[in-house]
Amino acid sequence: MWKVFWNIELLDEHAEGDAFMKMDLRSDTVTKPTETMLRAMAEAEVGDDVYREDPTVNRLEQLAAERLGKEAALFVTSGTQGNQVAVLTHCVNGDEVIAEAESHIFYYEGGAMSALAGVQTRTLAGERGALRPEDVEKAIRGNNIHFPRTKLICLENTHNRAGGAVVTVEQMKGVYDVAQKHGIPVHLDGARLFNAAVAQGVDVCELSQYTDTVQVCLSKGLSAPVGSILAGDRAFIEEARWWRKKLGGGLRQAGYLAAPGIIALTEMVERLREDHERAQQLAAGFRKLSLTVEPVETNIVLVRTDSIQETAVDFLQRLADRGVLAVDFDEYVIRFTTHRHIDEQSVAKVLEVVEKLLGAAKCSG
Amino acid sequence: MWKVFWNIELLDEHAEGDAFMKMDLRSDTVTKPTETMLRAMAEAEVGDDVYREDPTVNRLEQLAAERLGKEAALFVTSGTQGNQVAVLTHCVNGDEVIAEAESHIFYYEGGAMSALAGVQTRTLAGERGALRPEDVEKAIRGNNIHFPRTKLICLENTHNRAGGAVVTVEQMKGVYDVAQKHGIPVHLDGARLFNAAVAQGVDVCELSQYTDTVQVCLSKGLSAPVGSILAGDRAFIEEARWWRKKLGGGLRQAGYLAAPGIIALTEMVERLREDHERAQQLAAGFRKLSLTVEPVETNIVLVRTDSIQETAVDFLQRLADRGVLAVDFDEYVIRFTTHRHIDEQSVAKVLEVVEKLLGAAKCSG
Amino acid sequence: MWKVFWNIELLDEHAEGDAFMKMDLRSDTVTKPTETMLRAMAEAEVGDDVYREDPTVNRLEQLAAERLGKEAALFVTSGTQGNQVAVLTHCVNGDEVIAEAESHIFYYEGGAMSALAGVQTRTLAGERGALRPEDVEKAIRGNNIHFPRTKLICLENTHNRAGGAVVTVEQMKGVYDVAQKHGIPVHLDGARLFNAAVAQGVDVCELSQYTDTVQVCLSKGLSAPVGSILAGDRAFIEEARWWRKKLGGGLRQAGYLAAPGIIALTEMVERLREDHERAQQLAAGFRKLSLTVEPVETNIVLVRTDSIQETAVDFLQRLADRGVLAVDFDEYVIRFTTHRHIDEQSVAKVLEVVEKLLGAAKCSG
Amino acid sequence: MWKVFWNIELLDEHAEGDAFMKMDLRSDTVTKPTETMLRAMAEAEVGDDVYREDPTVNRLEQLAAERLGKEAALFVTSGTQGNQVAVLTHCVNGDEVIAEAESHIFYYEGGAMSALAGVQTRTLAGERGALRPEDVEKAIRGNNIHFPRTKLICLENTHNRAGGAVVTVEQMKGVYDVAQKHGIPVHLDGARLFNAAVAQGVDVCELSQYTDTVQVCLSKGLSAPVGSILAGDRAFIEEARWWRKKLGGGLRQAGYLAAPGIIALTEMVERLREDHERAQQLAAGFRKLSLTVEPVETNIVLVRTDSIQETAVDFLQRLADRGVLAVDFDEYVIRFTTHRHIDEQSVAKVLEVVEKLLGAAKCSG
Repeated sequence: MWKVFWNIELLDEHAEGDAFMKMDLRSDTVTKPTETMLRAMAEAEVGDDVYREDPTVNRLEQLAAERLGKEAALFVTSGTQGNQVAVLTHCVNGDEVIAEAESHIFYYEGGAMSALAGVQTRTLAGERGALRPEDVEKAIRGNNIHFPRTKLICLENTHNRAGGAVVTVEQMKGVYDVAQKHGIPVHLDGARLFNAAVAQGVDVCELSQYTDTVQVCLSKGLSAPVGSILAGDRAFIEEARWWRKKLGGGLRQAGYLAAPGIIALTEMVERLREDHERAQQLAAGFRKLSLTVEPVETNIVLVRTDSIQETAVDFLQRLADRGVLAVDFDEYVIRFTTHRHIDEQSVAKVLEVVEKLLGAAKCSG
Repeated sequence: MWKVFWNIELLDEHAEGDAFMKMDLRSDTVTKPTETMLRAMAEAEVGDDVYREDPTVNRLEQLAAERLGKEAALFVTSGTQGNQVAVLTHCVNGDEVIAEAESHIFYYEGGAMSALAGVQTRTLAGERGALRPEDVEKAIRGNNIHFPRTKLICLENTHNRAGGAVVTVEQMKGVYDVAQKHGIPVHLDGARLFNAAVAQGVDVCELSQYTDTVQVCLSKGLSAPVGSILAGDRAFIEEARWWRKKLGGGLRQAGYLAAPGIIALTEMVERLREDHERAQQLAAGFRKLSLTVEPVETNIVLVRTDSIQETAVDFLQRLADRGVLAVDFDEYVIRFTTHRHIDEQSVAKVLEVVEKLLGAAKCSG
Repeated sequence: MWKVFWNIELLDEHAEGDAFMKMDLRSDTVTKPTETMLRAMAEAEVGDDVYREDPTVNRLEQLAAERLGKEAALFVTSGTQGNQVAVLTHCVNGDEVIAEAESHIFYYEGGAMSALAGVQTRTLAGERGALRPEDVEKAIRGNNIHFPRTKLICLENTHNRAGGAVVTVEQMKGVYDVAQKHGIPVHLDGARLFNAAVAQGVDVCELSQYTDTVQVCLSKGLSAPVGSILAGDRAFIEEARWWRKKLGGGLRQAGYLAAPGIIALTEMVERLREDHERAQQLAAGFRKLSLTVEPVETNIVLVRTDSIQETAVDFLQRLADRGVLAVDFDEYVIRFTTHRHIDEQSVAKVLEVVEKLLGAAKCSG
Repeated sequence: MWKVFWNIELLDEHAEGDAFMKMDLRSDTVTKPTETMLRAMAEAEVGDDVYREDPTVNRLEQLAAERLGKEAALFVTSGTQGNQVAVLTHCVNGDEVIAEAESHIFYYEGGAMSALAGVQTRTLAGERGALRPEDVEKAIRGNNIHFPRTKLICLENTHNRAGGAVVTVEQMKGVYDVAQKHGIPVHLDGARLFNAAVAQGVDVCELSQYTDTVQVCLSKGLSAPVGSILAGDRAFIEEARWWRKKLGGGLRQAGYLAAPGIIALTEMVERLREDHERAQQLAAGFRKLSLTVEPVETNIVLVRTDSIQETAVDFLQRLADRGVLAVDFDEYVIRFTTHRHIDEQSVAKVLEVVEKLLGAAKCSG
C-alpha cells in the first residue's frame, strides 16, 4: 500500500503567490480560466438548464457534439460524472465492463461503477494504457448462466497512469472492430483526448470515430474552470440526462460554466502543444540528472525515485518544502503534469530545485 | 397517470424577452443571479476544490455551516445531489429510510435513493408535508431478520408538493425527539428552508437544530445560479466528500459558483418575504376568480382546476399561449411559484390572463 | 416501534412433543412433510439442476407451469427468492415498483428490492390488501426526467398483513387491465395463492391469468419442506435463471426438494379448506370471548389485544408459557395461522388457554 | 470469446444408464448422495429453520463451525450464496474487494459481488491461484477520496481455474499476515477446501485459521445433494443471516438437506484422496497420449487441445458422442473432474475413448 500525497497541509503556508503557483505540477486541473473565458462567463446568457433553456449550455452541447463527430452531447460537472453517467446509461446492474487495469474509471473513481451502476469490471493490463484487441475479445463473456454479460468496453486516451500515453488511431480501431463484431459499445474516457489528438497531429474525430460514446474534460489542459462533455448518439444522450439528474448533475443557470467551456473547445486546443513541449523539456532535464523517466508523449512526466532510494512521498515532501508540487503515483513514482501555468521558466526552476535536492540527497546519503 | 408539463416546446416561440420572462412561474429555480452575484463571480478567487484549495468554496462552506448551526458544510451542485449524498453517507445498502410520501427526495429524484444507495423508502403520508412523530415511531423497524434497518428519517421544509407548506419548529422537534430516542439521524431537505424560516419569523437555526444534516438550495429563491449546501457534523461532511466525488460532484475552480452562493446566504434571505407576499396576492386574486386554492404559506400557490372542468395540462397550455408559465402538479392541480422576477405587475398580469381564460372557458362551455 | 416475537427462547423448554407442537400457530411454514412426501423424497430421481438435468425438478417445473397457466416455471428456495428474482428480472436499477403498503415483498423481505435490484417502491394502501385500479393508474409515473420509470406492479394474494384477505378475481382483473393499458407487467406474490383460490372456489388459473408472473409457495399450507415456484413466460423464466444463480439459488440435486413439491401441488391443495374452517372456528371462539377479530377469509386470524389493555408481545408471552404459539403483527395485534398440524382439538385447546388467560387478566386487572 | 459447453443437449440421448454416468467428468457437483446420506435424510428431525428450530440444521452448523475452527456457521444453499453472503456482510456499497483474477467469486458468480453488494473487485493474477502477499499489500488502497476502501481479501483453495491447485498453509499465512497488518478481513472460498487439506495432509483448520470467514461446499466431492457452509465469528454469522434472508436463502425444514451435509463432513472427507488418485491416473494417461496436461494436485485435470489443433468445444463434442463428458475451460483447455462416481474403470474407459479420438484425428488430419 502506498500513501497518498494529495491535500498537502504544507500548501497553505507556501501558497503565497503567483511565483509559487508557477511550480504547481500536481495536475492540469489546477489551471485557471483565461481572460477570454472570464469575459465569456460574465456575458453569458443563461436559463434553467433542467428545463433545457440555458442557451449557452445548449450552444456548448451542440458545438461539442460537432467537434467530436457525435449526434449529441451533454454538459456534466466532471470527468467522473461523464464516465459514470456513460456506464449507467450503457449498462444495467449485473452487467460486466471491460476496462484497462489502471484506467481512471476503475482506479480513481471510488469504485463508482460498481457502487452506483452495480456492474462488475473485468480489468485487462494494457500496453502503455492501450488494450490489445485480442485480449478484449478473449475477455468478452460467453452465454453462460455463470457469467455476467459484457455490455461495455472502456478505453482511456491519453492514459493517465500509463504516463499520459497516447492510444493511436490504429489501436482504437482495433478494439472498436472487435467491439462492433460482438455488438458491444465502446466508451472512451477522453479526459485528455485533445492531448492525444494534438500529439498525433490528427483531428479529435479521427479518434472519437472509434467509439460509441466519449467523455472529454473542459477543465484540464483546456483550462475551463469546471466541467466535461459526454457525447454520443441522440437516444443515448437523452437517456443519459435521466442518470445525470439522479446523480444531482442537473444544474440551473449552468451557462456560466458552459461559456468558458465553449472557449476551451474553440480556442484552447492547439496550445496543448506547448504543454507537451514543456513536458519533454522537463523529462530531458530529469534524465540529465540521471533520473529514470518513463517515455513522455503528452503533458505527463513519470519519474522513478527508486534509483535515488527515496520514496515518492518523501521526495515530494522535500519538493514541496521548496515550492514544487507534484503527486505520487506509486511507492517510487512521481507524476509531474505540465499545463498553461507552467512555462519554460517554471520548468527551469523545477529542474533547479530537483538538482539541489539530488545533490543534498547524495551528501546526506 | 398524469402527463407532465415540463419542457414545453412552445416556449421557444414565446421566449421573446423580459416582459415574457416576468410571467414564468414554473419554479424559483429560473431566477437569474443579481448584479452583485455576477460581480462576485467575476472577482472570485479560485483554486482546485478537489484539492480543497478553492478559497471561495472554503469560505462559502464555513459561512453556510455557521448560518445553519452545524460544524461543517459541503458545496454540491444541486439539491438532489445534496440529498443523495446525505442518504449515501448516512446509510448502507439494505437499510430503510422514512420519508414523507410525496417528499421531493422520494417523488422527484428519479428513485435515486434506491438506485444509488440501495436503500428502501418507507413512505408516510404527512399532514401538509409534516410527518407526525407517532407515525414515525410506529414505522421504525424492530430487530427482526425479515426487516431492513431504519437508518434515516427525512423531512422536507418547506414541503413542495404540500404547496410550500411550512413545517413548524414544534413539528420538527417532535420528529427529532423520536429520532433521538431511537438513535436514528434526521436529514432535512431544506431546499427552501429559508422560506420556512422567514415565513415563521425565526432564524433558520431554530429549524436546523432539530436535524443531524440539512441541505439548503442556493439556487432557488436565493437566486444563485447553481448549487446547494449539505451541512452536518465534521466527520459526516468528511465522509460525504467521498460520495460527492463518486457522483462526479468534485469540481475544480468551483469558486465561480460559490461566490454568488455567498451573496445568496448573506444578502438574499430577507427578500424571500416579498415572494411570499406575491404568492398571497396571487392566491387572493385566484380566489376572487372563484378558483380553489390550497392554503398559501410561502412562495408556492397550488390551484385546482377540477372546478373549471379542465385538466391542469390543458389549462397550462392555454396559459402558455398567453405567456404565463406554471407547472402541473397533479391531473387537476397547477403550481405557481413566485420569485425575484415576479413583481406586483407580473402578478396582476397573470391574474388578468387567467381571468380572460376563465371567461373564455365559460363562453365556450 | 413494536418489538418482535419471533425466535422465542422459551421454545426450547416447551418443545417437548407433538402435543405441544399441535398448538404452534405462528405460521403455516412450520408444517412438516406428509408421509407421501417423505416417500417421494426418498425415491426421487435426481441430477445436477444447474445443468438442468434433475428430472424431478424438471417435472415439478413443468407441472407447476401447467397448474398456473404459464409457459414455464422455476423452482426457488423460498417465496422471498421467487419474489426477488421476479423483481430483478422485470426491472433494472433506477426503476420503480408499485406495491401495497404492507405487502410481504415490501414489508418482510428486508428491503431486498432496493438492496439487490436498486428499485424504488411506490407503496399504496390497499383495501384489505387489494390495490384499487384507480390508485395504481394514478401512481404510474409520467415521462419526466425527475421520475423513475414504473416497471412493475406487485400484488399479493392472499394478503398476509391484511389477515389472509382474499383478492378477488375481479379485483385482480381491475389492476391487470390498468397494467396492460400502460404496458407494465404484474407480478403476483401468491405465497398463499392456493388459499385464495380455494376460498373463492375457483381454479388457481382464474387468478393467475391476471398476472405476468406469479410466485407460489410449496412450503406453507401445502406442507412441502422447502421451496417456491416462480412462473411466467418462457423468455422471462430463462432470464430469471440468471438472477437465481447470482442469488446462490442454483442447486445441485434439488430433486429431493422438488419431489415433495410435486405432492404439494397435486395432493395438498384441496385440504387447505380444512385450515380455513379451523380459522373460522378459532375466530368464532375468540369473538365469543369478546375479543376483537378481523374478518377471516382463509387460514389467518388477526386478534386485537387493545380491548384487553395488553400488548401483543405480553399476551404472546403468556400464551407461550401455556404452550400456544402465535406472532405479533402490530403493537396490539396477534396473528394466529392454521395449518395441517392444527386440528379441531388444537383449536379447542387454544381457546381454552386464551379463555383462562383472559379470566386471569380480569382478575389481576 | 470462447463458447461454453454446459448443458449439452446430446446428453438426453446418451444418458442411458450407470455405465454412461460413470464417465461424467464435468464436475464433482454431479455426485449423488450415498446410501448413508439418503438414510440420514429420511430420518432427519426437522423444524422451521427461519425460526432457527431445525435441530438437524443446528447440529450441522455447530459441527461445521467446530470442524473449521470457527465460532459459528450458517447453512447456505450453494457456494455462490455462501460467498455472496460473505461479501455482503463484510462490505458495504462503494467498497473494494481484492480477489484473484480468475477466482470463482469473480469469474463464475455472474458479477454478483458488484450487482448485489455494490463493491468493486480489484483482481490480481495469482501464481497457480495463490495471491502473492506483496501484490495484495500493494493493491490495498490508501486513504484518498479518489479511491474505494479495501474491505475484503478473497482467496480460493483449491483454485478451480488454476486446475484444482492447492494454496499452501504458508501461502495462506502470508496473505493473512498482510491482511491483519492492515486490518482487512480475509474470506476464503473453500468450495473444495477439504481437497486442499487432504492433498497437503493437514487438518482443514491449518488452512482455515488464516481466514476470518470461510465457505466450504458439502455438495461437490463430499457428495451431499445440496448446500454449503459459511463459517466465521459469532457476530459475523448473526449478521450473515440477515443477508441470507434477503437472498431468499432462509429455508423452512432445511434439515432434509442438512442431514446428508453432516455425513459429508463426518464420513466423506478422507475418500477425496481417491479422487485425487484417479486424477493422477487420468493425467498420466493423457500425457502418455502426448497431450499437454497442467500439473495435477487434487481432483481436477486441465488438458490443452492446441497441440492437437482442435478447439476444446469441438473435442468435447466428439467426447460426448462417445459418452465422456467434461467442460471447456478456455478455447483450447478442457477440464476433467474426478469424483465418487469415477472409479479406475471409468478412468480407463475415458483414456480409451480419448486414444481412439486422437487416432481418428490423426487419420482424418
